[in-house]
Amino acid sequence: MEVALGRVPPDAVVENGTLVDVATRRFVEGVHIAVSGSRIASISTERPATGPNTRIIDASGAYLAPGLVDAHYHIESSRLSPRRHAQITLPHGTTTLFEGSHEICNPLGLDGVRYILEEAEGLPQKIFVGVSSATPPTPYETAGAYIGGTEAAEALRLPGVAGVDEVMDYTALFAGEERLHSVIEAGLASGKVVEGHGVPSPPQADAFLATGVSSTHFSGDGVKALALLERGCFLELKPRDSRQAIRDLVAAGIDWQMVGMCVDDRPAETISRLGHLDYELRICIEEGLDPVTAIQLATLNNARHWRKEHEVGIIAPGRRADILFLTDLEGFEVDRVMADGEMVAEKGRLTVDIPIKPAPSYVLNSVKLPRPVIAEDFEVRAPAGKKSVNAVVLRPFYFSGDLGPLTRELPVEAGAVKRDLTNGINKVAIVRRGGGGIGVGFWEIGYEAGAVAMSVLHDSHNVSVIGATDAEMARAVNRVAEMGGGIAVVRGNEVVAEVPLPIAGLMTDRPPEEVVSGLERVNKEAAKLRPGKLLGANPVDTQTFIFLTCFPWGIVLTDRDLFNVRTGRPVTAVW
Amino acid sequence: MEVALGRVPPDAVVENGTLVDVATRRFVEGVHIAVSGSRIASISTERPATGPNTRIIDASGAYLAPGLVDAHYHIESSRLSPRRHAQITLPHGTTTLFEGSHEICNPLGLDGVRYILEEAEGLPQKIFVGVSSATPPTPYETAGAYIGGTEAAEALRLPGVAGVDEVMDYTALFAGEERLHSVIEAGLASGKVVEGHGVPSPPQADAFLATGVSSTHFSGDGVKALALLERGCFLELKPRDSRQAIRDLVAAGIDWQMVGMCVDDRPAETISRLGHLDYELRICIEEGLDPVTAIQLATLNNARHWRKEHEVGIIAPGRRADILFLTDLEGFEVDRVMADGEMVAEKGRLTVDIPIKPAPSYVLNSVKLPRPVIAEDFEVRAPAGKKSVNAVVLRPFYFSGDLGPLTRELPVEAGAVKRDLTNGINKVAIVRRGGGGIGVGFWEIGYEAGAVAMSVLHDSHNVSVIGATDAEMARAVNRVAEMGGGIAVVRGNEVVAEVPLPIAGLMTDRPPEEVVSGLERVNKEAAKLRPGKLLGANPVDTQTFIFLTCFPWGIVLTDRDLFNVRTGRPVTAVW
Repeated sequence: MEVALGRVPPDAVVENGTLVDVATRRFVEGVHIAVSGSRIASISTERPATGPNTRIIDASGAYLAPGLVDAHYHIESSRLSPRRHAQITLPHGTTTLFEGSHEICNPLGLDGVRYILEEAEGLPQKIFVGVSSATPPTPYETAGAYIGGTEAAEALRLPGVAGVDEVMDYTALFAGEERLHSVIEAGLASGKVVEGHGVPSPPQADAFLATGVSSTHFSGDGVKALALLERGCFLELKPRDSRQAIRDLVAAGIDWQMVGMCVDDRPAETISRLGHLDYELRICIEEGLDPVTAIQLATLNNARHWRKEHEVGIIAPGRRADILFLTDLEGFEVDRVMADGEMVAEKGRLTVDIPIKPAPSYVLNSVKLPRPVIAEDFEVRAPAGKKSVNAVVLRPFYFSGDLGPLTRELPVEAGAVKRDLTNGINKVAIVRRGGGGIGVGFWEIGYEAGAVAMSVLHDSHNVSVIGATDAEMARAVNRVAEMGGGIAVVRGNEVVAEVPLPIAGLMTDRPPEEVVSGLERVNKEAAKLRPGKLLGANPVDTQTFIFLTCFPWGIVLTDRDLFNVRTGRPVTAVW
Repeated sequence: MEVALGRVPPDAVVENGTLVDVATRRFVEGVHIAVSGSRIASISTERPATGPNTRIIDASGAYLAPGLVDAHYHIESSRLSPRRHAQITLPHGTTTLFEGSHEICNPLGLDGVRYILEEAEGLPQKIFVGVSSATPPTPYETAGAYIGGTEAAEALRLPGVAGVDEVMDYTALFAGEERLHSVIEAGLASGKVVEGHGVPSPPQADAFLATGVSSTHFSGDGVKALALLERGCFLELKPRDSRQAIRDLVAAGIDWQMVGMCVDDRPAETISRLGHLDYELRICIEEGLDPVTAIQLATLNNARHWRKEHEVGIIAPGRRADILFLTDLEGFEVDRVMADGEMVAEKGRLTVDIPIKPAPSYVLNSVKLPRPVIAEDFEVRAPAGKKSVNAVVLRPFYFSGDLGPLTRELPVEAGAVKRDLTNGINKVAIVRRGGGGIGVGFWEIGYEAGAVAMSVLHDSHNVSVIGATDAEMARAVNRVAEMGGGIAVVRGNEVVAEVPLPIAGLMTDRPPEEVVSGLERVNKEAAKLRPGKLLGANPVDTQTFIFLTCFPWGIVLTDRDLFNVRTGRPVTAVW
């Protein structure tokens, strides 16, 4: 206020740019923006008075857009700690993240929220946290922690917690699960935002939204998008997966105020290759959305949905001074980035020091087996006297509860059911990260040799392992445990590639370039073990997702063996 | 949820209407809306299953729009209690009000908030309260109560309190007044909305908004409207006073998501003549705004600004079942009204019983003089020995601090300064409603006889009186006090018209038709006293506003005599 009134000189003035006005969807030329500390004091076509220490930042020829606001994001999926993650995403223009915290909360409980908020302190990238609604993600698996209504309410009292993170298990929701409904109630009572995810098409959409859930992270077509919008659901587009929906919505000529966008999950190596929310924004423009509307989706619309438009999402007095300098609006190339009043990046490179804080002890050593696992832990016993058995042989992304196509014959040796490597059938196990539970099953994956284990396993983040032999599986799991969490690719007795992720078993605070090359290496080494097509080009990244237990998955493997998540019943693995 | 899933039959189904989809600005034909209790369960073009007790409400041929949401309103200005006010505004389609509470808080403090929320309980019209930021309105006057940061924070913890009500005293704001800034801080800390009013043009607009204030109730032109929108200010249009701005904004082709609308103040007799938010909506359409956008402004946009879009402002699952049946979209005639799942009005008439609760004792007897006033209380002494004096002679709506045009010569008799009735100069007084303070001044009003007194005096709500003689002034003030608050028109010793307003001296719970005719009568009788043109056609209504002490007023009269609100200094009245 004092700076806007001209009583105190501004700390910085961004001079002579073209404002992208996201409130009205217009441009204002020749704008000067006065900055005081981390916030914007005033905007004017008249040059503000300056003092001897006022920094002048020339914006001639540049469009000035608000810093990007990601409506839904999991920092953990980058494998980088929040501060390391800021180092690689600020240059892409992401100045605010709404962090869905269930990845870190599943192993750590509310300590996960605490860690993210501590990391965010003093960081020019704003991180607002949604408290996990998915701890545990489903009743079928054992996560390390529990967040019910009481715990959620405790977190929601923190100013840095902006709401409840993605309600997604609609089987449990429709079954009236007390824990999940009480978390939603806590969110509604707090006046903060209750986020949804995977909201289905009507009529189930209506039931989902009737519980108070406000939004969904959207991949789908225009018909579904319109149906959800009509029902008051804020759409957080994942543009990469929603190209058709974007074209359809553009064609329908809708009002876009209830549409935003998000990245959701992206490993560091993919960020370094594609970009971040800037990449998603370019996809929207490619698919025919006008650039200013696309910018609205990624700034003001996301901020308004999260009830933080007084803080971020618009270049306006009182808001954080988060400003992108763009030379090409259509191409959306981020030339320079101001965050919290400081120039933090230029031409894709960080230009400030973001110091790394030592990881607090409460986030370390969360992957800790009471004893090393051994090959015999992965043995599957056949019913007595059988030479071969019928077995459930899962495969990735099998969205059905029908066991028929999964039933295969497997050989038995010395009473134990064997893999069928010639037909690409591996053994898979989920090892509870604190010990005490191992679920074992057969999956059609294709690995011809070796084993791949990791403590990143959406959403429970137990340790998953896929292997061609029980001994290699044991070696890989033990290596992950020795690192206190991470990813290990094993061949024979040798660890051929690894990425330690000691922070909650999910993240590391090593330099991003080191982590990027580490992640590239584990993917490459895993690919050499020939996983076949089912795990795609980045088998390690895919492995992190194939054990989800929420809808639309059907038959799942957890640390407590096989479940049908559509019926809530255990499934017999071999007979 | 259970109803949407078809497990429980709906209580009501609104069948076969055309949905006005305010999320995307489209129409959906042939829609059936299932209602459960006070909320919407589902929306579908397929008929939902019904039970034996499901009420079927035919909407063939009707547009179905969300119930109207007034973004900023003072129920007190209707002179009706909240429940009586609901009786006359529900038929106009207003199903939600964001009540600015400073009128009632000035006499009653937080008991005012309590009273409004108690009245709202069980009412099909939703009333969310903004806690007063203007108690006292300015430092120059004595209201009955005080609301600082601590008191505001206490109110903001109530679920029915949606934010802080209209910050407007920008002289105090820019002077850094501790009370006002601490109320804003309490609002920001609560995560709720901090409302503004009277936000000036840039550069002062920037300073105003930099404090965290989010909005303004807007009367003005398009240039100012665009300047405020660009600066992230949510505009609550008062369409009746903003016709040019509406035309300008339509011509500019803006995105309207940051624009809403409000009625602000409207006495019962004006509501009965013009209508309510429906009337404002018709003005927008008249001025060229397309009807669906106009409906968005009065529904979803207002609800989103107030962070209540999960409750009201859209016909969608989980929201209150507030539905307007419109036969003519362009004319915006409200045919039938559903509120909280019940049909409450048809063709402008209430069709449900809204029982009146007895007014609690804490809202009564707030206008209570320690002794009756007498004529001598209004005497203005001249400096010794003077035959005539220079005097400040105010007039309504004089928006300047310049005393020049106000300085007039007035006669002196027996040491007392006299009116100059031949030149239309009356005496005016502000009598503190609890006694203990009387400010007296001269005003150019025109009354040739009699006196008009009232305990409705924006925003302090002390007792104002304008009179042709001191004796009539005393009679009128005493009558107001005898009624425990209200409006009295006196001629000689006779009270020729009166409206008792015993609730906080501002409202009554008598039937609306009785109050409407009473208000018409006091205006008519006051007009007979010939106030001239300065008070307009409804002199009583105008009198309620002409003693405001917030900007843009300049020289004001309060219970502590004359002040210049631009300098904060007392002003000598006669010399």
